[in-house]
Amino acid sequence: MRATIIHGPGDIRVENVPEPKIVAPTDAVIRTVATCVCGSDLWSYRGINPVTEPQPIGHEYVGIVEETGSDVSTVRPGQFVIGSFIASDNTCPICRAGYHTSCRHRDFPNGCQAEYVRIPLADGTLVATQEQPAEELMPNLLTLSDVMGTGWYAARAAEVKPGSTAVVVGDGAVGLSGVIAAKELGAEHIIAMSRHESRQKLALEFGATDIVTERGEEGVARVKELTNGLGADSVLECVGTKESMHQALQSTRPGGNVGFVGMPHDVQIDGQQLFFSHVGLRGGPAPVRAYLPDLIERVFSGRINPGKVFDLTLSLDEVAEGYKAMDERRAIKALLRP
Amino acid sequence: MRATIIHGPGDIRVENVPEPKIVAPTDAVIRTVATCVCGSDLWSYRGINPVTEPQPIGHEYVGIVEETGSDVSTVRPGQFVIGSFIASDNTCPICRAGYHTSCRHRDFPNGCQAEYVRIPLADGTLVATQEQPAEELMPNLLTLSDVMGTGWYAARAAEVKPGSTAVVVGDGAVGLSGVIAAKELGAEHIIAMSRHESRQKLALEFGATDIVTERGEEGVARVKELTNGLGADSVLECVGTKESMHQALQSTRPGGNVGFVGMPHDVQIDGQQLFFSHVGLRGGPAPVRAYLPDLIERVFSGRINPGKVFDLTLSLDEVAEGYKAMDERRAIKALLRP
Repeated sequence: MRATIIHGPGDIRVENVPEPKIVAPTDAVIRTVATCVCGSDLWSYRGINPVTEPQPIGHEYVGIVEETGSDVSTVRPGQFVIGSFIASDNTCPICRAGYHTSCRHRDFPNGCQAEYVRIPLADGTLVATQEQPAEELMPNLLTLSDVMGTGWYAARAAEVKPGSTAVVVGDGAVGLSGVIAAKELGAEHIIAMSRHESRQKLALEFGATDIVTERGEEGVARVKELTNGLGADSVLECVGTKESMHQALQSTRPGGNVGFVGMPHDVQIDGQQLFFSHVGLRGGPAPVRAYLPDLIERVFSGRINPGKVFDLTLSLDEVAEGYKAMDERRAIKALLRP
Repeated sequence: MRATIIHGPGDIRVENVPEPKIVAPTDAVIRTVATCVCGSDLWSYRGINPVTEPQPIGHEYVGIVEETGSDVSTVRPGQFVIGSFIASDNTCPICRAGYHTSCRHRDFPNGCQAEYVRIPLADGTLVATQEQPAEELMPNLLTLSDVMGTGWYAARAAEVKPGSTAVVVGDGAVGLSGVIAAKELGAEHIIAMSRHESRQKLALEFGATDIVTERGEEGVARVKELTNGLGADSVLECVGTKESMHQALQSTRPGGNVGFVGMPHDVQIDGQQLFFSHVGLRGGPAPVRAYLPDLIERVFSGRINPGKVFDLTLSLDEVAEGYKAMDERRAIKALLRP
């Protein structure tokens, strides 16, 4: 089959490799209908995460079940499925508490930018749709595998409530999905921090009520201006830098919450500052499995259209261009059709 | 009147000073019925917080209203009142959200280890009891001014829920109050971390189900052992050191919560570690005003007896001995009767 292999920084190739097989009785193999490039894939592409040998890449996928292991009972060949970027058993105490990405038996699907992919813990990871989705729903459903679920978790971790004010720091696919989530959870004012016109436009379309282009102290001051000097009830931190975390913490009112889903790079939080801020903080890899049934329903009913974050669609063979376009910020997110 | 003045590290004196007067129309002056020495007073006593000139000290109090300013309407002379260690208006958006200690107009009662004290923002800060409390309730009521309310906030910030497992890091008056709070909020297992026999005994009396004497990695391992390898749902951090914060964060299960009320000294939290822990974190000076009506009711009904944290009662003139005994850890907490 055709599969994406990263050989080193900036070196993405599509190669012929053997098709994946069932390894454990809890596995499923799916035929990928759509996959995509994640912002976090760029860490390897940019050489921030070292790549010491050629390896398969990609962790977002929707597809048709091809084969299942003997212990798999909730999905069967022929079904259309969406799964989380981290595999979970969906039964351990941590899964039951809603934190599937810290499942006690978690595993990592990899090499999803390919024609076929093996998914561990299929029963706890994959959710089948009730019917075969129409072609136009594909981008929406694909986002549920990671970015839309991640934006949802950011909003939940930031405890967005009906009538509240939310700030979204970061205008990538996750930040934009966070705008959707904040709106769905009832935020009345949604402030998107963005300086890119096309992303501002999408944020407004997704439900943002205000755009703040300033950053740093000026960005904080602007958010305070828009919130009666208080700061926002909820802030979704969707970047992961020192600056974005600072921006998020300073933009939150006392007693408010920051949900952080940008994987922190070189971020230290001062205990005393956090103490006096009265801000609640929760982050982590989003337990998207927990949200799949609800979000699938919202996509099928047409309530949400997160697939609009894909502004580039390529064939699998063109995957290298997808990485390049995202790296150069010419594209928000690239969808791949094997 | 007689009032406690700190002159420098280790130098606590009782002196004759003028009685406080109403300064703003929102003030009240109360005659102190009981006051006490707080763990945080020891920072100045130990020279950690510099004392550059002699200054009044103390921030915990119960008493009888002596006089009120012209704008005060909710308390009147002759009433027995309890108030928070930080004054708040109880009407601003931050107070309404339950974070009175970040009130937009907050002020700081000071010099409470004295016969009389001026309380700013009396309407928003003081709560009068329905009747004059019996003498034996005095220690219980006095704790509501700070430590019991602080333990309560720690448990609330750590989101203690019925049936859950809570760990309390710290066996001072606040930690012990945290044990009471965890029990009242329904925790089924309460693990108190303590190596002092008298404090262990009190923790057990207050509702702790397990005592852990180990610290650091061994302490974490012991908590994991007691929680099926998972860590606790809720951890109350009641110390404020690097070690205690580490202990708290490592003892929490993924998706669990740390409430931290020990004022952090030289504590840095690594963003990436917090991210992958999935632990929620909230701290700050406890909004004890928010809890006063409820906690007063629990004291009057006999449900809680937090006054037991006072293991030393002195006259105001003996206040220096109270500091000394607490500094040397001979006493958990010293109550003073003016």
